[in-house]
Amino acid sequence: MKRSFIREILEHTNSNTISFAGGLPNESLFPYKELQTSAYEILNNPKVLQYSTSTGYKPLKEQIAKIYTENGFETKSENIMITSGSQQALDIICRYYTKESITIESPSYLGAMNLFKLNQMTTNAIELGSEGIDILNFEQSLAKSKLAYLIPDFQNPTGTTYSLEHREKIAKIFQKNKRILIEDSPYSELYFNTPPRSISSFLPKQSFHLGSFSKVLAPALRIGWIRADSSLLQPLIAYKEAMDLHTSSITQQMVSDYLRDEKMFQTHLHKLRKAYKEKMLYFSKILDAHLPKFSHKKPKGGMFIYGKIEGINSMELVQLAMKNGVVFVPGSEFGGADDEIRFNFTHSTFKEIEEGIKRIAKSLKDY
Amino acid sequence: MKRSFIREILEHTNSNTISFAGGLPNESLFPYKELQTSAYEILNNPKVLQYSTSTGYKPLKEQIAKIYTENGFETKSENIMITSGSQQALDIICRYYTKESITIESPSYLGAMNLFKLNQMTTNAIELGSEGIDILNFEQSLAKSKLAYLIPDFQNPTGTTYSLEHREKIAKIFQKNKRILIEDSPYSELYFNTPPRSISSFLPKQSFHLGSFSKVLAPALRIGWIRADSSLLQPLIAYKEAMDLHTSSITQQMVSDYLRDEKMFQTHLHKLRKAYKEKMLYFSKILDAHLPKFSHKKPKGGMFIYGKIEGINSMELVQLAMKNGVVFVPGSEFGGADDEIRFNFTHSTFKEIEEGIKRIAKSLKDY
Repeated sequence: MKRSFIREILEHTNSNTISFAGGLPNESLFPYKELQTSAYEILNNPKVLQYSTSTGYKPLKEQIAKIYTENGFETKSENIMITSGSQQALDIICRYYTKESITIESPSYLGAMNLFKLNQMTTNAIELGSEGIDILNFEQSLAKSKLAYLIPDFQNPTGTTYSLEHREKIAKIFQKNKRILIEDSPYSELYFNTPPRSISSFLPKQSFHLGSFSKVLAPALRIGWIRADSSLLQPLIAYKEAMDLHTSSITQQMVSDYLRDEKMFQTHLHKLRKAYKEKMLYFSKILDAHLPKFSHKKPKGGMFIYGKIEGINSMELVQLAMKNGVVFVPGSEFGGADDEIRFNFTHSTFKEIEEGIKRIAKSLKDY
Repeated sequence: MKRSFIREILEHTNSNTISFAGGLPNESLFPYKELQTSAYEILNNPKVLQYSTSTGYKPLKEQIAKIYTENGFETKSENIMITSGSQQALDIICRYYTKESITIESPSYLGAMNLFKLNQMTTNAIELGSEGIDILNFEQSLAKSKLAYLIPDFQNPTGTTYSLEHREKIAKIFQKNKRILIEDSPYSELYFNTPPRSISSFLPKQSFHLGSFSKVLAPALRIGWIRADSSLLQPLIAYKEAMDLHTSSITQQMVSDYLRDEKMFQTHLHKLRKAYKEKMLYFSKILDAHLPKFSHKKPKGGMFIYGKIEGINSMELVQLAMKNGVVFVPGSEFGGADDEIRFNFTHSTFKEIEEGIKRIAKSLKDY
């Protein structure tokens, strides 16, 4: 099996390399003091350290269910399974549906495509337009698939957000064909202006909605979840159990303790959205100023700016850029076109953004 | 896929049930104050909360490698991969060797057997004697297998410990047949008198040695590892990455911080061994006094007493026992005989042990 370009890069770049490659949150925005307090609080009780249940820590499941319900998507704790990041959430589902056919977006998240391969699934990739996946081709593909895997909110890698109209159309196609949606939503809370409505909320009995605290609190917690109808969730428990018994109850309880102060969490999310929006606007402005050949649209949330420099091969460009101390991910890594590029705009400082783009501009001159 | 009897029980017993079922460490022995301090220390740095490398936190890998080397099994940090418990360690290996044939002990660890099934492996179970797996049958089976899965130290469920002579014989069979050993060693540090020598140390290039902090520090950390030659370990990295990106770096760094005080860890292990030995001796004594029909041998370490009540069906007995407020695991759950029983002796208090065994004696009368 091939390793992820991004994760190989994460392991090999040095401290002078400016990285727009990984989907890394900004470290300066981690609520680490609050999580430190939560860790200290929960570790006052030795019982926290014992083996726990495979589906997850019940108070945390209740808190997540409450957030869904408050957002208009009625959910109970038995609809939630805690997983070791949403990466594992997808793996659990794929293992259950091993060898099935699945419709995906093109381009799509690399880590998901690796899991489809690992679980011997047949993927059918349908082009992603500016409003969402191409409807006609999607409908034809879904009729022949068991499932579809979509990232409707600030998609990885393209940053695309499905319009509400598009979401409704997609939901109807699922209903008509009686198929199952896997909706991957790690970025849904990172909207700049308007919260997106999940497609799953139109399809409560036909969907797996995947969530994560990696982008909104901290990746190192490794806490993600699956939201699904009990009938879909129940058969997955044995898989979760076989795979790692259960997710760390230390990090689960840390998150649960943190979430008890609902206002603190909302304030944090607000701060995050504001900071990331500023970063995105700055990144876009610097691109226009120093790398005008890179054409792109501003995303409505999330962590990525996607676009292209017509006529170049971005895999060749990144080799030059690496020598000049900057990295990004070529679109071809995600199944995109050879001249496409994905930039992460959340991780770097304003200074690094300017310097990094200048280094890419220099690399483009040498190209 | 079938769920584990033990984990289903964990979820359904009430607070009045005395459980000898799960392989639970004793909560009163968790070094929770020290882990609380470690958590607080490491969370002073927001960088701890960022994404991390798939093979694990390097200082922790170095510390684990050092422990191996000090125990006479030369190991470097590149021989270690950190996993989300040793359950995941085994899953990673099984996914790589999917569909291969594997020789196992009979009876064996249920969670392992589930993984062999999940990964479509063909198992060949060879009887476990008092000194270890039956040599002649093992040799014949291994010649036809790609791998073997053994638990030589205080085996789960039987408590059996392979003699040194037996280990050497087994190692020679691996060398002769050029096969790969998966040695599962979650209990190896829980010896009562003499530390066991791993079979892997005779076979450094032909073995995966699986370790865990679940039994010696705390299960909720979900920190296990694989020790293997780099050539065996390298191809597994892409699997680990696809499965959950990486194990929580919060719990990894907690353990690493804890281990920095080597003397504290050794003192803790010493205390644990002493306490568990006392528990085992007491459990055995109470069995002899109140349940004399249960024949068993005292284990040399670990967490389990295994034996039988000749002529009974222990699956039927546990149904009665459950009504009387006590549970254990029937040997048949592990592939053992119908009259066999596994008792966990580490989790309960002395009082619970006496009361629990009395309740089983009562159930046996009603049987």
